[in-house]
Amino acid sequence: MNFIYAIDLIGTFVFAISGVLTATKQKFDVFGAAVIAFVTAVGGGTLRDMLIGSTPVGWMLDINYLLIIGLTVPITFFFRKHIQKLRKTMFMFDAIGIGLFTILGLEKTLAFGLHPAVAVIMGTVSACFGGVVRDVLCNVVPLIFRGTVYATACWMGAILYLLLREMALEYEVAMIITIIFIIIIRILAVRRKWRLPEMR
Amino acid sequence: MNFIYAIDLIGTFVFAISGVLTATKQKFDVFGAAVIAFVTAVGGGTLRDMLIGSTPVGWMLDINYLLIIGLTVPITFFFRKHIQKLRKTMFMFDAIGIGLFTILGLEKTLAFGLHPAVAVIMGTVSACFGGVVRDVLCNVVPLIFRGTVYATACWMGAILYLLLREMALEYEVAMIITIIFIIIIRILAVRRKWRLPEMR
Amino acid sequence: MNFIYAIDLIGTFVFAISGVLTATKQKFDVFGAAVIAFVTAVGGGTLRDMLIGSTPVGWMLDINYLLIIGLTVPITFFFRKHIQKLRKTMFMFDAIGIGLFTILGLEKTLAFGLHPAVAVIMGTVSACFGGVVRDVLCNVVPLIFRGTVYATACWMGAILYLLLREMALEYEVAMIITIIFIIIIRILAVRRKWRLPEMR
Repeated sequence: MNFIYAIDLIGTFVFAISGVLTATKQKFDVFGAAVIAFVTAVGGGTLRDMLIGSTPVGWMLDINYLLIIGLTVPITFFFRKHIQKLRKTMFMFDAIGIGLFTILGLEKTLAFGLHPAVAVIMGTVSACFGGVVRDVLCNVVPLIFRGTVYATACWMGAILYLLLREMALEYEVAMIITIIFIIIIRILAVRRKWRLPEMR
Repeated sequence: MNFIYAIDLIGTFVFAISGVLTATKQKFDVFGAAVIAFVTAVGGGTLRDMLIGSTPVGWMLDINYLLIIGLTVPITFFFRKHIQKLRKTMFMFDAIGIGLFTILGLEKTLAFGLHPAVAVIMGTVSACFGGVVRDVLCNVVPLIFRGTVYATACWMGAILYLLLREMALEYEVAMIITIIFIIIIRILAVRRKWRLPEMR
Repeated sequence: MNFIYAIDLIGTFVFAISGVLTATKQKFDVFGAAVIAFVTAVGGGTLRDMLIGSTPVGWMLDINYLLIIGLTVPITFFFRKHIQKLRKTMFMFDAIGIGLFTILGLEKTLAFGLHPAVAVIMGTVSACFGGVVRDVLCNVVPLIFRGTVYATACWMGAILYLLLREMALEYEVAMIITIIFIIIIRILAVRRKWRLPEMR
């Protein structure tokens, strides 16, 4: 459980860093960057919590998320060049992060007694819609709607996880297999330049 | 009651189709199209439910909405030309849909013990704000803020419905009169090119 | 208490007027202007209420907010020139408004048993995020992310207020000092052209 919590915090940190980097491209001020970091990191889970009615929303109940996100603005401000060298490491933790957030979101939705199909959607929302809110606030079209195999890795992972649980696999085992699956899909998607078919 | 449910599902279907068509214009991928279909179809009711505190939000409790919306992406993908020939049919079902969604949203708000004026607003939000969220996600200015007589048909219909109910008309009768009223306003608005006055 | 309520309504009115003026620049119709007025005036508090789980959200429970906001569209439509002469008065009431909304939002969050750091954030959200939703609906980058010392006045005021309360100052005294502090920061920020540092 402590291991899951550690991954959760690291995922939050990496999401927040990517938010600050986006805000930097948009020439936002430090306050705007903090908002975008925050929204990128916890926006998906917050939207999920508002939709299923789990309020006050998650990040309000554990101050560590706030602390970690708050740190990302000065860190990115002062060490931006170093961070940009860590692109591969960031990519890996981002992939682990969306894997974990998908499963945690899915499990929370099931715990509210909702249908597994709703849980798959809410898992994907938890992992990916912080980025959608970030893009809306930056006044650009959401990145994940234009071909990237990102949310698709999440909902496929969510379905895989449900199947593994159906087969009576233990929570931790199913979680690790699912996260590895999502990481592999993400790596293959980038390496082989997979694109989702465009509507025409 | 089954009749109302059927209209509800048809309205959801037509809203979702119009969402997919918008996503297609934006060159979104199939996942993005599914999100826009979803948001267009249930976004208004979802926003209403979050505002009045009816969570988990409506579509989570009846899987049929998900199924119907999910179908619209492949249907539009493969039969787009046929659908574009059905523009008049779509217009009619859209008008029926906003009529029904306005009344259902209004009644739900009243059932939460809220003021009739709030219910008129929430009826309009239920019918029209899925389209607003769709436009925000597509990074365009919401269509219904620039002259179209659309939301106005809804709030006028909502007030008419409240008056009819005040006059002790039965639920079904008041509903049918209101929906016909909204359809007529919509047809006249398009035929006679009615525009709301612009702020200046 | 009646005094606070009066300031609250005046603040709502001034926020709504500024929303109508923004909608006018965007060439929105009267319905769009009403929506933007509404969102600017109560959007921040509404977002706070959805996040902490205080539903139905605040404005639904007191019809006076609706009435006051509804008045701003015809008033701005017919007296726009007069209003533009009142820019300094509007600036003052805006500053008083964000001061009051920050404290009311902060106190409501504390009353829900949440952490003071969360309360500082929710105070700032209450005061400033109506403007963010307004900007998103107008399809522009949120104004407060690009250098303006606006939200920063709020969160600094919120922290000051918490310190004053910690020092056992009375509610009303702490509130007045905080609002004066926020007004001074806003006036200095405009006079001396203070800008928040940009991310780079």
